[in-house]
Amino acid sequence: MSPPGRLLLVPNALDFGLAADALPPLDEQLPRETLRAAAGLHHWACENAKSARAFLKRVQACVPLAAPLQSLALAELPRPPKGRGEAGALPPAAWEALLAPTAEGHDLGLLSEAGLPAVADPGAGLVAAAHRRGIAVQVLPGSSAITLALAASGLQGQCYAFVGYLPVDAAARRQRIRELEARAQREGQTQQMIETPYRNPALLAALLDALQPRTRLAVSCGLGMPGGFTRSDSVAGWRRMPADLPTDRPAVFSLLA
Amino acid sequence: MSPPGRLLLVPNALDFGLAADALPPLDEQLPRETLRAAAGLHHWACENAKSARAFLKRVQACVPLAAPLQSLALAELPRPPKGRGEAGALPPAAWEALLAPTAEGHDLGLLSEAGLPAVADPGAGLVAAAHRRGIAVQVLPGSSAITLALAASGLQGQCYAFVGYLPVDAAARRQRIRELEARAQREGQTQQMIETPYRNPALLAALLDALQPRTRLAVSCGLGMPGGFTRSDSVAGWRRMPADLPTDRPAVFSLLA
Repeated sequence: MSPPGRLLLVPNALDFGLAADALPPLDEQLPRETLRAAAGLHHWACENAKSARAFLKRVQACVPLAAPLQSLALAELPRPPKGRGEAGALPPAAWEALLAPTAEGHDLGLLSEAGLPAVADPGAGLVAAAHRRGIAVQVLPGSSAITLALAASGLQGQCYAFVGYLPVDAAARRQRIRELEARAQREGQTQQMIETPYRNPALLAALLDALQPRTRLAVSCGLGMPGGFTRSDSVAGWRRMPADLPTDRPAVFSLLA
Repeated sequence: MSPPGRLLLVPNALDFGLAADALPPLDEQLPRETLRAAAGLHHWACENAKSARAFLKRVQACVPLAAPLQSLALAELPRPPKGRGEAGALPPAAWEALLAPTAEGHDLGLLSEAGLPAVADPGAGLVAAAHRRGIAVQVLPGSSAITLALAASGLQGQCYAFVGYLPVDAAARRQRIRELEARAQREGQTQQMIETPYRNPALLAALLDALQPRTRLAVSCGLGMPGGFTRSDSVAGWRRMPADLPTDRPAVFSLLA
């Protein structure tokens, strides 16, 4: 009997969406342990098989794959229900079938489109299912844009929260921003959020409208991409010197009152 | 006049404290962009000059340094007041002197002992001072053990908070654990915390004592080190099968009710 395989969490680079000819070599963004582990895997769970193949081609340019790309088994994660889905929104059984290769002794890779799998990304249900079945879970080194943005913000990094997306409805969003600001002030806890890139300017405008002038706001845009930047200033400073945020690159917003 | 230098946030590997002969090559844990940027810097702000030199020796084994190690300028961060310090506990002026090289056109590196600078680590005050002075802040790719632990926990990764250390006093710690569990239940927000390694078993015991049986608890220990692991189970499961946590390796605790 072969020993049971493990679930390996494989980080991706942060340059998802860049044109293929603009992509730097993958070892610029990912450490060798991660590349070597990825190159050795025959079984994958991923968000999208096409972009997983593109990732594996980039791996192959750094480390030879253990098997031809065409022979690898790539299974897509089940899609959460429509809307801003939660990791837990799928029934546990939805994940079990994906874990089948581990019972035959194969390691299974879980790949994100960008950054860490299961962090502001689908896949936590698969990790939870692995733990339930006693499958060893190993996470490989890699970056999360949210945590890099926190470091670059200069805000409180000993105590922080990531809250995902804010409501789209303007009144509800304003109320949520006020709640987050109040918590940041009361607890000294940096509050972080994200938005779909085309709505980056709208979220910035809503934050500058609702927050107090002395609250500090940091925006990190396109971290891990050429031209990526972080601006961190008081709300009053942002209002004095407005910014046009890109609408085609992910941004992370961090605030501390 | 030379252009002003930047502040580069340089992640470290997660293997702080391992014996020198047990350390893997640094490019196993850090991507090449980070190593190359680190190798090019002449000016550093760090927690401890001796371990910064040890880091730079490991960099040198992967990428030639732009200047001899002995000629580099390593300045230690000012120490926060005794106790479990906050990033903001030092007056802004404490950080300004460290930024002097950037006015002369030199990039300045901010190095952590392990993981990302300014995330559960000192240095946020220096980053904030750089933003105040209009110095560009660039963060290089690297891992945070806290975020890796979140990915490996299988808990909610779309909404999470890191709260640092819990109170040492048993009654206050118990109350804090109850508060965190209530928030996790109310908001679906994973709560993460750390402890000084020798107190890992005591924190685990306190969590298992105070939490509800169905609350899920994950412990990641020594991530990025040989033998690093994550166990994620219900509190009832932990009680049925107790664990001896290492007291010489950092652990991250994550819970979701």
